Formats: sequence, C-alpha cells, structure tokens
Amino acid sequence: MSEPITAAVLVIGDEILSGRTQDTNLGYIAKVLGALGIDMREGRIVPDMEEEIVAAVNTLRARYTYVFTTGGIGPTHDDITADAIAKAFGVGIDYHPEVLAALGARYQPGEFNEMRKRMARIPDGASLIRNSVSTAPGFQLGNVFVMAGVPMIMRAMMEDVAPRLDRGVVVVTATISAKIAEGRIAGPLAQVQTDYKTVAIGSYPFYTPDGFGVQLVVRGREADSVEAAARAIEAAIAGEGVVATRISP
Amino acid sequence: MSEPITAAVLVIGDEILSGRTQDTNLGYIAKVLGALGIDMREGRIVPDMEEEIVAAVNTLRARYTYVFTTGGIGPTHDDITADAIAKAFGVGIDYHPEVLAALGARYQPGEFNEMRKRMARIPDGASLIRNSVSTAPGFQLGNVFVMAGVPMIMRAMMEDVAPRLDRGVVVVTATISAKIAEGRIAGPLAQVQTDYKTVAIGSYPFYTPDGFGVQLVVRGREADSVEAAARAIEAAIAGEGVVATRISP
Repeated sequence: MSEPITAAVLVIGDEILSGRTQDTNLGYIAKVLGALGIDMREGRIVPDMEEEIVAAVNTLRARYTYVFTTGGIGPTHDDITADAIAKAFGVGIDYHPEVLAALGARYQPGEFNEMRKRMARIPDGASLIRNSVSTAPGFQLGNVFVMAGVPMIMRAMMEDVAPRLDRGVVVVTATISAKIAEGRIAGPLAQVQTDYKTVAIGSYPFYTPDGFGVQLVVRGREADSVEAAARAIEAAIAGEGVVATRISP
Repeated sequence: MSEPITAAVLVIGDEILSGRTQDTNLGYIAKVLGALGIDMREGRIVPDMEEEIVAAVNTLRARYTYVFTTGGIGPTHDDITADAIAKAFGVGIDYHPEVLAALGARYQPGEFNEMRKRMARIPDGASLIRNSVSTAPGFQLGNVFVMAGVPMIMRAMMEDVAPRLDRGVVVVTATISAKIAEGRIAGPLAQVQTDYKTVAIGSYPFYTPDGFGVQLVVRGREADSVEAAARAIEAAIAGEGVVATRISP
C-alpha cells in the first residue's frame, strides 16, 4: 500500500477567532481533497500575527504532504500572509513583474496605489495560483498553497491548485441513518469496528423536531470492506427492530 | 494593564476534517468568551486519534489560560476524548459514581449498557460540567474544559463553564461599512492603524449582487481609542466621496 497523501489547512484571520466570521473554507478544501484521495489531517486557525503564521506553517509543512492557507493576501495592512510565508521559508519577497503588470492593467490610471501593489508581492521561487474571479493571485511555495480568504476567490484558486496535487486512492463512504439512540447500538458498532480494521466508523447523533437518531459513517479505501462493514451495521440495527436507511454519502 | 486572559479551542472529530460536518462551535465559544473579555487566540481541529488529541491538548494548555475541547465524549467507540485527556494530564480515569448513578436513573432497566457507561468515565481530579440538555456531563481538568460536539449540548455546557472563568476587560468593537474597494482606502487605513496602536483594524471585503464594498472592524479595550480610530476611518472614506455607515458590531 502506498503512503497516504496528507494535508492540513491553516486558516489565517482575527475575524474567525473572534467569531465574527464563520469559516467555511476548511470544509470546502476537505471535500476537494477528498475527491482526489488526499487525507485532511489537521486544521489550525491563527490570528493575523506574523510569528503565529510562521510557526504554524513551519510545523504543518514538515508534517503533511500539503498545506493550504486561506486569508491575508489582500491589499490592506492586516494582510501579512505573503511576508509571513517568505519568512517561514527563509526566502526573499518582492514585487512579481507579471502580477504587477496584470494588476496595473486592471486599475484606472492613478488607482494602482502602493497598498494595491502589495498584492503583487510574491516570495522568491513561488509559482502563482491564478483564479477566474480576481486579478490578484495566490501562490505556491514548496508544498504550501497560499490562497485568498474570500470563499468565492479561494474556490476559484482551488481549480488552479487541484491539477498540481498528487492523487491517492479515494476514500469510499457509506452512510447509514437510523432513528435509534447511538448508545443502543454502540456495542455492536464497536464490534464491527474491531472486525473491519481497514475502515473508520464514525457515529454522529442528530436531534430534530421529528425525533433523534444517529448517522453512522463508514470510511475506507477498500470498497468491499466498507460495504461489508455497512451491512454489518445495518444488520445490527435491524436486530434492534429499527429500520436503517442507506443515504447518499 | 493586567495580563490578557487567553483561550484556544480544540475541535475533535474526523467529521469536521472530512468536510462532512461544518463546525460552528468555535465561533460560538469565541463569542461567549469575547463577552467575558477573554481572547480566543488559536483554534485547532484534530481527528479522532489519541496521540493527536494528547499532543494538541498539552501544547495548548501550556500556552493559553484556557482550552476548550469539543467532541468525542459520547458512548461509541470513536469517542476517545476523556481517555485522551487523562493521558495528556498523566492521571487515571474511572467511572464517576455520581455520573454513573445519574445515567443509570435515566435509562430503562437493561438499557444502561457497557458502552453507555463509558460516558461516566471521568479523569481523576476533574470537576463535572453539567448541562440542561443531556444527562452525560463534560468535565474540567485544570485549565481544560471538555465539552460535547453536538452544538445544542455544547452551548448548554458553556452556561455551566462561564461562571468558572476569570474575566478580562471586554473588547469594544466599531464596525464601519462602505461601498468602496478596500484597496482605495488601504493607505489611509494603514495610517490610522499606525496612529492608534492600541486598536486592531481588520478589513473585510464583501461581494453581493448589489455590488462590492468593505467592512472595517476596529477592536480594542480602550473605548475612546476605538471610537477615535473609527472616526478617522470614516473621515478617510468621506474623503474619497463615499458614504460610511456605522453598523452594529
């Protein structure tokens, strides 16, 4: 079996940590990576502070195949990600001629001010991440992909990033829903997990106005084992006299 | 000025990292803490793997005043947080008599199985975190608060947690919205940040069907400085011939 391809997301921004903004980028990136067979292993959220960004990037890039950062690449004073990434890698950073030209062409005469030029600052040796929404690019340096925080722009950037990534075996998922307390089937569930060691079984209780229940998610890279484990779970639920429903993953 | 009171959130769960479930707990906890004058400084998301939980908890509890974990305290095999926390602190873990009794009273005869009893496993020396929704408690060990992942239960647990926390000076926020490109006022904005060093100014562009604009958020613990910085920003926007609107924080 080949080595798993792994990833981490680093969300950069005071607004996430204050609760002002709900991050949705991590989940989106996770789904894109999942479709490529890449395992998201960790997420971190740090404030707009250079030393925090540098430390997190250096820890994560040593630990995982890929690191994806979001946030902090705009024109304002609180956009410090590009400089922090350069510092983390110990490389210089300067205005990228091509980006400078592209941004210059976008603005009216007199509008391309010094702060906007900051968006052309790209660490030495980085390749650009283009996107269909904004003229300002992200960039890739080594195994680190630096993207915008605005979801619409980040998603467009992922389209440019995805073809650069190594692909792994895609995880197969089976999801079973049943109106049963998870504690009632926790024993059989643990047994299924013991019997099928190549799958990971997650148990997620839900509560709705119609009542409670549980969704059981079986994940693994061997489709036969996932299906067998899912059937074993369905049998366990049926054994309790409850109907189990297979739902789309 | 007294030392800031700081916090981190550790979200535990494969389902967040796979993109299956959107975390909303971090933002909720951030807002509760914000109202108490406590600064959320970092978030981490780790899978249901003991060594990852142990490592993250030990890093975070050494670094911040408080750590809040969510997820992994239910009855199923993938609920390993309590054991991981005990391991992180190097203490034992056993069935808590009071929790065992409360859970036993909740279930019908024969329903209180071995897996459900797992929810009564509390690390030695921990105090319970009760909640109005579920009989199963969370717990506090040292500066670490261990809570459920289900948002409804986690929120109820925060009501029991909040009175235990030291309080700091609450951050005052002023939010200004304007239909202007952030790059157009980025220069004056940087100047306001330089002039008012005790505030943090965040710039958050938005894009709607009606057009684009920016929200500028001034945060600080000195209300006078926040207000003065906000007025300086409003003046800068007015200088560009654009209307700035103060909105509720």
